[in-house]
Amino acid sequence: MLNEDSWLLPEGIDEVFPEEAERLEQLRRKIIDLFASWGYRLVMPPLIEFIESLLTGSGHDVDLQTFKIIDQISGRLMGIRADMTPQVARIDARSLGSEAPTRLCYMGTVLHTQSDHLEKSRSPLQVGAELYGHAGNASDLEVIRLMLEMLAIAGINNVHLDLGHVGIYRELARQAGLDAGLEAELFEILQRKDHPELVTLLSGLAVSDSTAEMLQSLIDLNGHEGVIEKASKRLASASEPVHRALADLDSISRSLTALFPALRINFDLAELRGYHYKTGVVFAAFVPGYGREIARGGRYDDIGRTFGRARPATGFSADLKILARLANGTDDGSGSLRIFAPAVDDPDLHEEVRNLRAAGHAVIQELSGQTGEAREMACSYYLRKQGLTWEICPAND
Amino acid sequence: MLNEDSWLLPEGIDEVFPEEAERLEQLRRKIIDLFASWGYRLVMPPLIEFIESLLTGSGHDVDLQTFKIIDQISGRLMGIRADMTPQVARIDARSLGSEAPTRLCYMGTVLHTQSDHLEKSRSPLQVGAELYGHAGNASDLEVIRLMLEMLAIAGINNVHLDLGHVGIYRELARQAGLDAGLEAELFEILQRKDHPELVTLLSGLAVSDSTAEMLQSLIDLNGHEGVIEKASKRLASASEPVHRALADLDSISRSLTALFPALRINFDLAELRGYHYKTGVVFAAFVPGYGREIARGGRYDDIGRTFGRARPATGFSADLKILARLANGTDDGSGSLRIFAPAVDDPDLHEEVRNLRAAGHAVIQELSGQTGEAREMACSYYLRKQGLTWEICPAND
Repeated sequence: MLNEDSWLLPEGIDEVFPEEAERLEQLRRKIIDLFASWGYRLVMPPLIEFIESLLTGSGHDVDLQTFKIIDQISGRLMGIRADMTPQVARIDARSLGSEAPTRLCYMGTVLHTQSDHLEKSRSPLQVGAELYGHAGNASDLEVIRLMLEMLAIAGINNVHLDLGHVGIYRELARQAGLDAGLEAELFEILQRKDHPELVTLLSGLAVSDSTAEMLQSLIDLNGHEGVIEKASKRLASASEPVHRALADLDSISRSLTALFPALRINFDLAELRGYHYKTGVVFAAFVPGYGREIARGGRYDDIGRTFGRARPATGFSADLKILARLANGTDDGSGSLRIFAPAVDDPDLHEEVRNLRAAGHAVIQELSGQTGEAREMACSYYLRKQGLTWEICPAND
Repeated sequence: MLNEDSWLLPEGIDEVFPEEAERLEQLRRKIIDLFASWGYRLVMPPLIEFIESLLTGSGHDVDLQTFKIIDQISGRLMGIRADMTPQVARIDARSLGSEAPTRLCYMGTVLHTQSDHLEKSRSPLQVGAELYGHAGNASDLEVIRLMLEMLAIAGINNVHLDLGHVGIYRELARQAGLDAGLEAELFEILQRKDHPELVTLLSGLAVSDSTAEMLQSLIDLNGHEGVIEKASKRLASASEPVHRALADLDSISRSLTALFPALRINFDLAELRGYHYKTGVVFAAFVPGYGREIARGGRYDDIGRTFGRARPATGFSADLKILARLANGTDDGSGSLRIFAPAVDDPDLHEEVRNLRAAGHAVIQELSGQTGEAREMACSYYLRKQGLTWEICPAND
């Protein structure tokens, strides 16, 4: 017998028991069906692949999060996927030839070498949808709507949406003539919203006062209402791409408010989730009482370039396990009963069992000599012969 | 841009495109629902775990098939699962306390370091069902029936069933007083059905003529009819466990013939699939034109012992990808249409789109300025305003 320690699972790696597994399965189906009804077709990227192709287009942090293994057949290094988004982008770029917009969705386990601070899991069940081949607001709006529908179908209420646009910071940094190192340093300070440090850094740079002021203002440009108006004023002297980005945010948030009047939208122009590969609008969904986003996404044009086909792209992803945990009003089972059938060799009984199973009920057949009756078999009902027919009786009489 | 080589997938690792992915998803649901209707509850074992617990109860060959990775957090060696059966046995032994029979099922990707000869895949999508806590023929019969129902639901016809019993060879080897090395050597020869080598090996051993004859006869004890009768005669001087095993095979095959009159059953007493951990009846399903078994299983009592709880166990597994490939008469889509909706901001259109999606159709919303119309979006229908209402029109007019 193994000692207690050896069978324990690694930190952040979990096994899922029947009740939760069945809830996950039901939610998985609802979400895949929702995606399908919007025209998003399912793909299944591989669990492992060669590291060069797996890490293409993703940043250094994904590299560190990726488990590496040697392929005995080729002698090359492979990785276990830590994120499925670049894999799906490759499928669009390499394998599906259409120039028209392409909608894809996916669902699968990813592994991380380290667990993040809040969520201990190192094996999320990643679910997501991606839209390739369209560059306007219409496609960003569609994927945000689909993300909100996904949360609604999971029974998750009181969703807040965070909206931002990485193009604003990127363009201001370009205007300021920052090199890659300085841009990264400034980016890191913005993420921490560290005002004093930002002032110190900017004052040491050969940057015009107005540009420095605009970069500095990003920290304050967040909140519920009036942020876009405020930004238009404080970033007035910015170049055209910044104003286009603000107009996009304005247009998308207006459309969302019309479609989801109760949705609370929060703007944050310094929040640059996925900055290293994102290129436009970025967004995330939050719920009260859960300290980090429950779904996230944004525009990441041209991710397919390294695979030979640069296409506009926008999409989102979430962890199905977290969605299932936050889901309210689960209706698992949907009226199906668990029924215990006695170990009797009667053709009428066999037919009744077949019919009940075909009708979606779970019928547990007694095994001759077994331990346990209906209740111990987690059955609330059992089959009993009444006169000539087999009838379903409650197990607690 | 990556060169051609670097984005290619490793040998035996595949990505699945929409049509096949959707077929797999439909079949996955049908099978999980079938299992549920027989009372088999879904569990999700982890993709990776510590090697000691992952390989417990499985043989040397599974060890060699298992990718190993270092856990950065604990510094311990982990493996990527190459077989989910031992994981499910652990869940039964460690986590589910009932003494009554427990029925579990699972579905998930496993990885192998090497591809086998016929099937090039190194990433099967393993699906299986296991029954713990009952030792009689009734449970073996139930899992074989369930396996046959699974194949039927996948639309796989002309199934042949191979039946064997590892207890027969194991008991004869014990009677012959073979040590582990000799038993393994003899086992290997039996698998190859190499008659001359078997005679040579047996003649060099200090084994009674009658025992040697019985071991030798195993090679011939296979075929469609009369095998059990023939075995009873040729193994007449064997000990009681051998006769009990023959009686079990006889009883199970009679019940199967009554339930599935068209099923062709083939006995093979030298075929010892999974001998290292199997303990009783073993079985496999074949179809014409596919050179290896498409589903397999058997009894493997006491696998939970190393986890602190020895229980009788029987079950089966298959690769969903192979089942989907062999499946006939796929009814994917089930009447759902793909409909293209124009980029028009009309509340009536929005409502129609919502209704069509809720009814299970896929509605692809045109994105303003996009390339491609209905046909290029793989839609056979589109929405057009006729007078005051939006109507579905075929796209080929």
